[in-house]
Amino acid sequence: MSESQLRIPGPTPLPDAVRQAGARQMVNHRGPEFKELLGRVSTGLRSAFRTQNEVLILTCSGTGGLEAAAVNHLSPGDPVLSVSIGVFGDRFAKVATRYGADVTKLDVEWGKAAEAFAVTTALDRMAADGRPAKAVLLTHNETSTGVTNPLADLAAAVHAAAPDALLLVDGISGLGAVPFETDAWGLDVVVTGSQKSWMVPPGLAMVSVSPRAWAAAEKATMPRFYFDLKAHRDSAEKGETPWTPAVGVCFALDVALGLIEAEGWPSIFARHAACGAATRAGLSAMGITLFADPAHASNTVTSALVPEGIEWSAMSKELRSRGLVLAGGQGSLTGKLFRVGHLGAVSVDEIVAAMAILEGVLRDLGRPVEAGAGPAAALAAARRSGAADPAVAVPTPA
Amino acid sequence: MSESQLRIPGPTPLPDAVRQAGARQMVNHRGPEFKELLGRVSTGLRSAFRTQNEVLILTCSGTGGLEAAAVNHLSPGDPVLSVSIGVFGDRFAKVATRYGADVTKLDVEWGKAAEAFAVTTALDRMAADGRPAKAVLLTHNETSTGVTNPLADLAAAVHAAAPDALLLVDGISGLGAVPFETDAWGLDVVVTGSQKSWMVPPGLAMVSVSPRAWAAAEKATMPRFYFDLKAHRDSAEKGETPWTPAVGVCFALDVALGLIEAEGWPSIFARHAACGAATRAGLSAMGITLFADPAHASNTVTSALVPEGIEWSAMSKELRSRGLVLAGGQGSLTGKLFRVGHLGAVSVDEIVAAMAILEGVLRDLGRPVEAGAGPAAALAAARRSGAADPAVAVPTPA
Repeated sequence: MSESQLRIPGPTPLPDAVRQAGARQMVNHRGPEFKELLGRVSTGLRSAFRTQNEVLILTCSGTGGLEAAAVNHLSPGDPVLSVSIGVFGDRFAKVATRYGADVTKLDVEWGKAAEAFAVTTALDRMAADGRPAKAVLLTHNETSTGVTNPLADLAAAVHAAAPDALLLVDGISGLGAVPFETDAWGLDVVVTGSQKSWMVPPGLAMVSVSPRAWAAAEKATMPRFYFDLKAHRDSAEKGETPWTPAVGVCFALDVALGLIEAEGWPSIFARHAACGAATRAGLSAMGITLFADPAHASNTVTSALVPEGIEWSAMSKELRSRGLVLAGGQGSLTGKLFRVGHLGAVSVDEIVAAMAILEGVLRDLGRPVEAGAGPAAALAAARRSGAADPAVAVPTPA
Repeated sequence: MSESQLRIPGPTPLPDAVRQAGARQMVNHRGPEFKELLGRVSTGLRSAFRTQNEVLILTCSGTGGLEAAAVNHLSPGDPVLSVSIGVFGDRFAKVATRYGADVTKLDVEWGKAAEAFAVTTALDRMAADGRPAKAVLLTHNETSTGVTNPLADLAAAVHAAAPDALLLVDGISGLGAVPFETDAWGLDVVVTGSQKSWMVPPGLAMVSVSPRAWAAAEKATMPRFYFDLKAHRDSAEKGETPWTPAVGVCFALDVALGLIEAEGWPSIFARHAACGAATRAGLSAMGITLFADPAHASNTVTSALVPEGIEWSAMSKELRSRGLVLAGGQGSLTGKLFRVGHLGAVSVDEIVAAMAILEGVLRDLGRPVEAGAGPAAALAAARRSGAADPAVAVPTPA
């Protein structure tokens, strides 16, 4: 059986060179070779995050990174505004709540992005209630709904309405694939995960911390040990991590950052824009209803309604048997939505191929889909999206 | 340059088949293939832990596993006895303290094992003070000093003196290499780490939880989210993990458990006993002073004094240049001790080769070491240790 195309929003396919890095023999994580690697990776990440802040490497999934973002900078009872547009926004709020924060939630209808005025209003109300927000939890790209928040606008609204509030950002499924400005947008803590845009296996969260956030950490009393960012900073100064890191995933990240540097950000952003446009156009051409507000549709993951009369479990099984792995819905969207991941190592050609497989399955399941319409629409949309050449050389999985 | 011999107490060298697993393409961590893998791994781990309890898989280092052991079963203010024989015992105590446990420490002189009567005395005193221990934190094998505690005896002492106290055990650097009985010894929570005896890269902690510990978790109020074991148990029932796991490390663990099953526990235990005996004999024959109490010297890591007049940093650099990587001392032992790891994928032949390299370095650094004495003593000790044949087929790193 040939290898399946993995089109879920993480883990993403690994380029050949990254796979080879995963096969390297172990080294001493407290020796000179690993110290050099950490230095290179840290430099590469700072460049990708567009920040002068430290970017620390934690061995955990993205959710562990969200926990680190909350517990290092907050104390029990601290008023916090949590802006949630989906499952992962809810999760971030739950983390803060579990550790005793006084969380006010701004719940946005799923499929929509948050709006700056709503954030401003919520912050004003908290201040009027005598509970000014110590921090705002924001999601950059909501993986469960396929919506990218207008993060620059939301951050500006927070800075205007609550200048002292820390901005803690879940950047897990967008950073590294679409434009992102940690320093220019004034983001205090930004979290991402290795298995997303980075083309690396899961196992590492990468977290940037601003001077303002470090100052808050000095007073923050939520308990932390494994996720203590200060311990990570102290070790990073010696070229180490406080606890044994996922060495193999670090090897992979080192190689992947080299591929990213070689491709360059303009090409990476254009490729993701082209793949996002291709996916949306391909699905629409097959009569599938997209879930996300078109104005804020994500270029890393597309969510769509499971067509009426089709069971997701049956559709998923049939797709898998033809070599295409898509993701289902999460939380209350289970069985209602399916999702196509198009981040990391992905090319327009692969999206077109995925649309062709999907089209075949839909036709066999009795949907009135015109032969060839989906792939053709995908390719045309990619060309329109401004990618100079959709066949541009990109890292492709083996 | 040929590959170095990595003789530190984790990460341990990877056998070829495990390295190949690290190069596998990603799969959906919520799909059928990964579900099957988790089932196999869970069965293999239960067999290795010698337990009927669930063994849960967490994406973190061993320290994260220790945090999970503490925060899921305790509440702030709970009296806890922490038996520490070194750096990692101290770390376990710090985790519990950080989350608000009322920790009484039983500090044992470094290099010695804990004694059952001292544990009994400490528990009796806590009870007499009206603070009966809710839990006892125990280290099986102390990586920093190279001492293996008489865990069966210590556990029996706890059960006799404080039948209601939970036994939370750091089994990170011993379990899988030397005999260990989770159920027969009545251990409630046992933690190990992928990069130790398991011959797998770092990134996973494996944690077993007894019915008694699950009952305690219902009432325990220390905050937890990422390390919430109940969330892990709920997901495990569906063949998943609650957060994205380190998929590549899971691939490696799956393969490594197959190698372990093929070798069999009697051979694995005999091999580690032979390698431990060989290391101690080899070092002693070169005039090096062993640090650990001989009665409790570990068969997974040997600690020894850096010879007088030699700087560890210079010695380490010279060893590295000749292809041997050893570990330095930790905590207050930095610069005073060095450590030889002999766990996981290790053979007597490799220990003999390591002793030959060490001998050359010591002679060049001016130590009066007889040529050939170290390797010869190592080989003789391995033969005496009862290994049928020190050249027994074992998984060796490529």
